[in-house]
Amino acid sequence: MINVAIVGAKGYAGEELIKILLKHSGVKITSLSGRMDGKPKHICEMYPYLKGNLDMFCEDIDEKKIVENADIIFTALPHMVSMEIVSKFISLGKKVIDLSADFRLKNPDIYEKWYGVKHVNPGLLEKAVYGLPELYRKKIKKAKLIANPGCYPTSIILGCYPAIKEKIAKKKEIIIDSKSGYSGGGREFAKNYKEPNCYAYQIGGIHRHIPEIEQELKCQITFIPHIIPQERGMLSTIYLQLKKDIFPRGLPAVALEDVVAVYKKYYENEPFVRIVETAMTKNVVNTNYCDIAINIDGKTNNLIITSAIDNLVKGAAGQAVQNMNIMFGIDEKEGLI
Amino acid sequence: MINVAIVGAKGYAGEELIKILLKHSGVKITSLSGRMDGKPKHICEMYPYLKGNLDMFCEDIDEKKIVENADIIFTALPHMVSMEIVSKFISLGKKVIDLSADFRLKNPDIYEKWYGVKHVNPGLLEKAVYGLPELYRKKIKKAKLIANPGCYPTSIILGCYPAIKEKIAKKKEIIIDSKSGYSGGGREFAKNYKEPNCYAYQIGGIHRHIPEIEQELKCQITFIPHIIPQERGMLSTIYLQLKKDIFPRGLPAVALEDVVAVYKKYYENEPFVRIVETAMTKNVVNTNYCDIAINIDGKTNNLIITSAIDNLVKGAAGQAVQNMNIMFGIDEKEGLI
Amino acid sequence: MINVAIVGAKGYAGEELIKILLKHSGVKITSLSGRMDGKPKHICEMYPYLKGNLDMFCEDIDEKKIVENADIIFTALPHMVSMEIVSKFISLGKKVIDLSADFRLKNPDIYEKWYGVKHVNPGLLEKAVYGLPELYRKKIKKAKLIANPGCYPTSIILGCYPAIKEKIAKKKEIIIDSKSGYSGGGREFAKNYKEPNCYAYQIGGIHRHIPEIEQELKCQITFIPHIIPQERGMLSTIYLQLKKDIFPRGLPAVALEDVVAVYKKYYENEPFVRIVETAMTKNVVNTNYCDIAINIDGKTNNLIITSAIDNLVKGAAGQAVQNMNIMFGIDEKEGLI
Amino acid sequence: MINVAIVGAKGYAGEELIKILLKHSGVKITSLSGRMDGKPKHICEMYPYLKGNLDMFCEDIDEKKIVENADIIFTALPHMVSMEIVSKFISLGKKVIDLSADFRLKNPDIYEKWYGVKHVNPGLLEKAVYGLPELYRKKIKKAKLIANPGCYPTSIILGCYPAIKEKIAKKKEIIIDSKSGYSGGGREFAKNYKEPNCYAYQIGGIHRHIPEIEQELKCQITFIPHIIPQERGMLSTIYLQLKKDIFPRGLPAVALEDVVAVYKKYYENEPFVRIVETAMTKNVVNTNYCDIAINIDGKTNNLIITSAIDNLVKGAAGQAVQNMNIMFGIDEKEGLI
Repeated sequence: MINVAIVGAKGYAGEELIKILLKHSGVKITSLSGRMDGKPKHICEMYPYLKGNLDMFCEDIDEKKIVENADIIFTALPHMVSMEIVSKFISLGKKVIDLSADFRLKNPDIYEKWYGVKHVNPGLLEKAVYGLPELYRKKIKKAKLIANPGCYPTSIILGCYPAIKEKIAKKKEIIIDSKSGYSGGGREFAKNYKEPNCYAYQIGGIHRHIPEIEQELKCQITFIPHIIPQERGMLSTIYLQLKKDIFPRGLPAVALEDVVAVYKKYYENEPFVRIVETAMTKNVVNTNYCDIAINIDGKTNNLIITSAIDNLVKGAAGQAVQNMNIMFGIDEKEGLI
Repeated sequence: MINVAIVGAKGYAGEELIKILLKHSGVKITSLSGRMDGKPKHICEMYPYLKGNLDMFCEDIDEKKIVENADIIFTALPHMVSMEIVSKFISLGKKVIDLSADFRLKNPDIYEKWYGVKHVNPGLLEKAVYGLPELYRKKIKKAKLIANPGCYPTSIILGCYPAIKEKIAKKKEIIIDSKSGYSGGGREFAKNYKEPNCYAYQIGGIHRHIPEIEQELKCQITFIPHIIPQERGMLSTIYLQLKKDIFPRGLPAVALEDVVAVYKKYYENEPFVRIVETAMTKNVVNTNYCDIAINIDGKTNNLIITSAIDNLVKGAAGQAVQNMNIMFGIDEKEGLI
Repeated sequence: MINVAIVGAKGYAGEELIKILLKHSGVKITSLSGRMDGKPKHICEMYPYLKGNLDMFCEDIDEKKIVENADIIFTALPHMVSMEIVSKFISLGKKVIDLSADFRLKNPDIYEKWYGVKHVNPGLLEKAVYGLPELYRKKIKKAKLIANPGCYPTSIILGCYPAIKEKIAKKKEIIIDSKSGYSGGGREFAKNYKEPNCYAYQIGGIHRHIPEIEQELKCQITFIPHIIPQERGMLSTIYLQLKKDIFPRGLPAVALEDVVAVYKKYYENEPFVRIVETAMTKNVVNTNYCDIAINIDGKTNNLIITSAIDNLVKGAAGQAVQNMNIMFGIDEKEGLI
Repeated sequence: MINVAIVGAKGYAGEELIKILLKHSGVKITSLSGRMDGKPKHICEMYPYLKGNLDMFCEDIDEKKIVENADIIFTALPHMVSMEIVSKFISLGKKVIDLSADFRLKNPDIYEKWYGVKHVNPGLLEKAVYGLPELYRKKIKKAKLIANPGCYPTSIILGCYPAIKEKIAKKKEIIIDSKSGYSGGGREFAKNYKEPNCYAYQIGGIHRHIPEIEQELKCQITFIPHIIPQERGMLSTIYLQLKKDIFPRGLPAVALEDVVAVYKKYYENEPFVRIVETAMTKNVVNTNYCDIAINIDGKTNNLIITSAIDNLVKGAAGQAVQNMNIMFGIDEKEGLI
């Protein structure tokens, strides 16, 4: 049994981690913590549906206590808070999967530019592995610190990667229009969101997931996130420009077949990526799948990728558990199907 | 009092017309009809919430009877069905506002290409006025036949028009990502839609609103519609490429100010267009407003317009009543505020 | 034009009052106020969908200023806060429609028992008229102060009244199971409500609408309110015991016909009560109607009444405007259809 | 591994069975069938989210083929259809868990009265075991045929049983007001249901779950079901009359404590019944739990029980799997946590 601590059990991601880990046959939750202001709460008071399944308190963060009983620590804290505490856990020899943004950007200058503070542990940035198994499985296997990807980046990078890598599409003028359930904004946001409503936010190249996506895809993007009236689930619609010469057989229908073949090849051994006709949030909600659909607009020569995930599962807690399974050499799907 | 007939009272648009016209102080509904298969139904059996407000039957379409008691006829029928019946109403001297797509495209060849049938009355296409008051108010005033715009085109044309017209943005590589409530698909679609779900449909340049938008904007677009989990409301996110030389003062912030000023100027006398900070469906649902927000991504030089309407009001029945008010010289806002 | 002030514009009821009064052809809103903590806010910042329709600030409550420009004042404040301010407005000679619970109970001891504080103005309790037009229209006509009924009581009293009054049902062992949209709990409640969820609350005879219902029906009730996952709309299911001897013709089907006839007679001239086959929230939402359906369980001899209203309209702001119309001798339906 | 066939895979219950059985470590699905009209469909075409998890076709019902490869058969068919096919499966020596109503009523005359047809196999009625583990676990262990309880009866019987059995409450004048998500009406109903809406249906003692509840509780009830705007989840509010002499210590608060103690005792070893402060649908949705809350209205002497389940899990497929686990001597919770 792997002993697991969850730091940040109050948020959506922490809650989702608990739910998934309770279904995991090889794990024991040894500690739940968060900012409790001196008032520990039984986890079943916080999440009454857990009654009968988990008998623990969520306590204030006590690093020493957490480290004692854990083989691995999941941190689901706000960025900037994570930096310090993760450093400590690592220095005490523990494996950490960090769900914040603090260790995702390799370049500390870029971190500072987008987050407005100096990174306290730039040395650790190098050692952190970006936890997208489809790209970095081998590194994840040996990692001590996983920087668990953001939800938008997960759906977008998986959607773009084969087309960019195989030079099917141009690396410029990529437009990405993402739609996210309101849990993506966190609990406070979700409280204040009044259903039903749909709108764009952080327009103008200012969303903090942009540098993360650009780092992994090595290209410039226009990215506009939107809120849609569902609690969970995320769809990214990606507009790429096809390279005209790449498909000698010419016709859009043929080109489409060829691109689909490339994608299927890329992901054929991936347990959680499915190439589908239509990517729909309802087919991935509450699962760790990323569903990807491929289309071509022959008139404008656009390659249009739609990519759907559950923002709290493949976009956060599920991917974190997938990373843990890889790190510990367990079946990658354990707890996730 | 204007005597009004509604042909196609069973669909969403017909229902919305009834609701709006009941609040209109200058109108009397004289006839409700649709495909009833020989079984007229009381309108309050179809829409029980109308009980006490409207005591009429919805009957099979009897053209003679409809024409006798109506000054103007609203047709909310499937395309191809509309062509024939509208022609008759017009030949009998009645004014018609047609909510189908049958008289929107000026070029009968383009109609045939997108709808797969020859247009039966190409002569009437010339006389039909595209019923977007913000562009064609003067023509609407004198029109006999209004081709009421589609919902997507309404939100998109109003969103793009000033930028295209004033040559602020390029006329090429325009990408439009629209999100629509499921009522946009009609009643059968809505029945089969299982909430909550978000997905793109008719990807690849095949949605029939494309030629309508391209006709009015005179430029080529990539357009992908999406379904979101709300009954009504539509948001179009439009990605235009800014002409770099257009704003000599340079900085994105300044450019933004200038573009906003252009838009405000364009729509300053429009009763139903509002330039806003954030275009949200919840602010326009059940209203005839089109809310437009303007943003610039300085890094990629994109002008990003978001445009929100209620697909059944400004996108259908509300705009139809606005057109009627213009045709009859009544206050344009009557019944709509 | 009637000059109208709204005190408590921040809550659901205040918002609904604004929406209804903007459609009222005989009214001018002269003042909007609430607890703004020294920071007046433009009403379109609070409710962006109002943009273009109302250009006013919502300010801190300044009694003198409010009184100066108003013929009538709507107070939509928490109970106990209302008591004092309403007393002042009345003493300054203004008409008031109070949407709180502070003037609904005639007996100040019962008020104290249920609200835990002494009533500051028991003398005014006598003068206040319980604003249920279907029962007290004549008194409302001459009233200075209207105690606008609660939402649950409106649906329940209208549903029970004819059966109790005509001695069709027993006055004891009445069980009432009400289902309310979450707006019924106010803004803070609605924020914290996580959709979808259904549950009972304030079980055990402790909901403060109980004495209000018992005062008007003069009988003892068991009342359990529930929250259902919709923003607005309320359904009360009322279980009464039929008096066996009341229907000499005997059979349940006949009895049902007779009871329906009694209800139709009672409400035949009421513009906002409809006797229907099935009372559904969707038929009354956003209207001032109360839909009442009547059924009999022949085996257990129960008379089962279901009564549906919009809790924010007939259950609050709509009924308040109906009362205002009666007080000023205007068409009772103005602004409400 | 237990080989399992699902007959009726197209409906909500069949779908839920698939989802649960895929998580069950001791089961292999060997056959999926339903009314396919000669056109077998891949299960992933019917339920696209299953892609990658189950590679099978749903075929027309071929009894011989089904029997060959199954140790146990789940039938989720409409009543009256079930009678015949279940009889065949049983005569061929297979174990069956029938989710229809056809084997729930012990008395064939009562079946005929409520369902309007003669039962074709009254002999089998005696052998069928009513599959409510909390009441009949021992019999279920040895059963060949399980009549899986209805959703309303499950929530109601579990809610009432201790109070009735222990003579805490009277056996007469029991009023039950249930609220169900719209999946309770089946797929066709759900399609036609237009959200959000709340209403009562089958009022007047005519719902077919009534005889099932009365058979198990041995008392007469008034039962009114309602639809609420959520896909799944059900809450039953049960109004019982307390026997006054049962609690010598008198005060309601004391009585409440005593009743709660009785309920806790009754269900202390039950893995899927929880005594809670507030029974909420959101705490049981997607689980096999039944949450029961107990309250007393001291003024009217009513015992008020609220009981929440997921109508598709504990109210159908989950309970069916729980029954299977008992029949095969597996851990009762397998596949259900």
